[in-house]
Amino acid sequence: MFRNLQNELALVSNSITNLISTDTFPETVRPSCLASAVRSYPVRGGKRLRPALLLWANGVLGGEPEQALYAGCAVELFHTWTLVHDDIIDEDDFRRGKPTTHIEVASYAENAYEKSKSLHDKFGRDMAILCGDIQQAWAMYMLLKSREKGVKDSLITDLMVRFQEVNRILISGEALDVEFPMRELSSITKEEVKEMILGKTSCLLKFAVQCGGAIALEKADFEDGYLATLGNFAEDLGIAFQLRDDYLGIFGSVEKFGKPIGSDFQEGKPTFLYLDAMELLQESGRNRLKALTGLPEYTDENINELRTLLQESGAEAKCLQEIAHLTEKAHCSLMLLPKNKYRKLLEELLSYLLERTV
Amino acid sequence: MFRNLQNELALVSNSITNLISTDTFPETVRPSCLASAVRSYPVRGGKRLRPALLLWANGVLGGEPEQALYAGCAVELFHTWTLVHDDIIDEDDFRRGKPTTHIEVASYAENAYEKSKSLHDKFGRDMAILCGDIQQAWAMYMLLKSREKGVKDSLITDLMVRFQEVNRILISGEALDVEFPMRELSSITKEEVKEMILGKTSCLLKFAVQCGGAIALEKADFEDGYLATLGNFAEDLGIAFQLRDDYLGIFGSVEKFGKPIGSDFQEGKPTFLYLDAMELLQESGRNRLKALTGLPEYTDENINELRTLLQESGAEAKCLQEIAHLTEKAHCSLMLLPKNKYRKLLEELLSYLLERTV
Repeated sequence: MFRNLQNELALVSNSITNLISTDTFPETVRPSCLASAVRSYPVRGGKRLRPALLLWANGVLGGEPEQALYAGCAVELFHTWTLVHDDIIDEDDFRRGKPTTHIEVASYAENAYEKSKSLHDKFGRDMAILCGDIQQAWAMYMLLKSREKGVKDSLITDLMVRFQEVNRILISGEALDVEFPMRELSSITKEEVKEMILGKTSCLLKFAVQCGGAIALEKADFEDGYLATLGNFAEDLGIAFQLRDDYLGIFGSVEKFGKPIGSDFQEGKPTFLYLDAMELLQESGRNRLKALTGLPEYTDENINELRTLLQESGAEAKCLQEIAHLTEKAHCSLMLLPKNKYRKLLEELLSYLLERTV
Repeated sequence: MFRNLQNELALVSNSITNLISTDTFPETVRPSCLASAVRSYPVRGGKRLRPALLLWANGVLGGEPEQALYAGCAVELFHTWTLVHDDIIDEDDFRRGKPTTHIEVASYAENAYEKSKSLHDKFGRDMAILCGDIQQAWAMYMLLKSREKGVKDSLITDLMVRFQEVNRILISGEALDVEFPMRELSSITKEEVKEMILGKTSCLLKFAVQCGGAIALEKADFEDGYLATLGNFAEDLGIAFQLRDDYLGIFGSVEKFGKPIGSDFQEGKPTFLYLDAMELLQESGRNRLKALTGLPEYTDENINELRTLLQESGAEAKCLQEIAHLTEKAHCSLMLLPKNKYRKLLEELLSYLLERTV
């Protein structure tokens, strides 16, 4: 299953990793521990989902994906710097099985300097802030390099303008996510949660496909024709992916979800699942759900009761329906694009990311 | 004295403040406390030194400064976001007489959310990281907007490439400054200190004048002719300004310096003054200087002894000579430019910033 897709993803990943690893931009970064940090996440690999979307959206509209390679690196590097800053904010210790940037630099400091643990940790965080800052510039630099592949300056300028707007929308999504835990959970609306998801997840996916498409078409009318269609596809994909993640967070297994089951409820996250259940339940059910939010730990019994509440309220069914609906919409958007091997890859990617059998 | 200069600086400041305050880029930032933070430093005013350099460098080469206004906003916003991140790292509470961004947002949080002080403070820092991130995009967006003033896409692309390199060099300078206090003071070389100053201070001044000049000339050959000359001018100005700041930090008055006299020695900063004195002094003097570094507080007697050591070693004279030499070089660079009212303004600005009577 998905063998062809996996092969093609590996090809994308290889060329992106290759181009990023050999790019000279970070070479002169000082001091050397910061230069290492700037390269750290970008060469760790990962799915390279955003470059794949960009290159295949380019291919589907008749572009020569080779021409869009630097743009592919740009969206990957952009994703990277947001993770570096996100990891400082979330105080996460691991990213893709290795230490996060601030932890990595703090460990370096522990060996290199004879200061206190708290100064080493602060040094790690400070350098990680600066690391993300430079990576943001590196991302821009890579998109600008598309010149060398024959992308016209006027198109590059259009894409750069859009890229800055993507920053604003994405960081606003991130900021909402940071703000939610400060507020009363009951004050957070579904509109705000949707805005957060559109920012944190959909926005960069949308830019990736529209950027790839624009390079193929040699114009950047994002609201028109194929580019609008590609945008709709990516936006729906992003929301569906997030809903699926929320679903797996309580109905999945820890292997599939990657975090302890119920952690969204533990952290008091305003997921659609939670907000829908609060809307649909009677008062007694609402009180039970509230009581099951923010517990220090979750027993199997707690998880089972949560599942029952979500099922009986109809919130689970609503979530699954919404995922199916968005997947179908995203699929229909793809059907409006030219039929070729890249469309096939995008279709496979959609199925792969949103496997019908959640 | 400098009345004409002051008037012209005020004119620049007004048009920059006006354009920044009315720009719509930050309008849709969410949540609203982040939108306020994004606008906070940029509308606080200040000297607007970088935009003035940019606009006058444009004017001196026969440009129409009006055309370079968005670029002027871009360098000011760029300066802004580096300050926001810098203030988090330095844990500073005030900037231009008002709370720094992380303190401002933390105070907002204290009123808006019923959480602990440490969560409010963390919220302030987290939002300040994201604030700088969005301001970086806003700076790029403003340079891209120069299109609307008729600046060609190919030139904008050239300038954007350079702007990303400026980010790398400036942040590297900042990172060296963060790294120095972690190291043994004796391990830090003058070359490293110069690299730090070139990054933290000169680099953006250099970009400002070269960007203004390039818009006037409609090309971006930074290593050639007038643009190279402008670059040399700004680089020398930046280093001289920093040396003057180091000098005032021990030989000036607290009113002029803005911080307690001797604070560089208290913080163990590797200034040229300090490094030169260490090179020039005999062992007993070196030991006294070391003993006078990093004290918890400085008496008048301590300050006087420091001054005597710097004077008797010849480090003070060397510093003043170097400032005079760089000022002279910067002046000579200006003499190579077309003689007009903008050159006069740049000359006045040079004298104003580096007043011969330090």
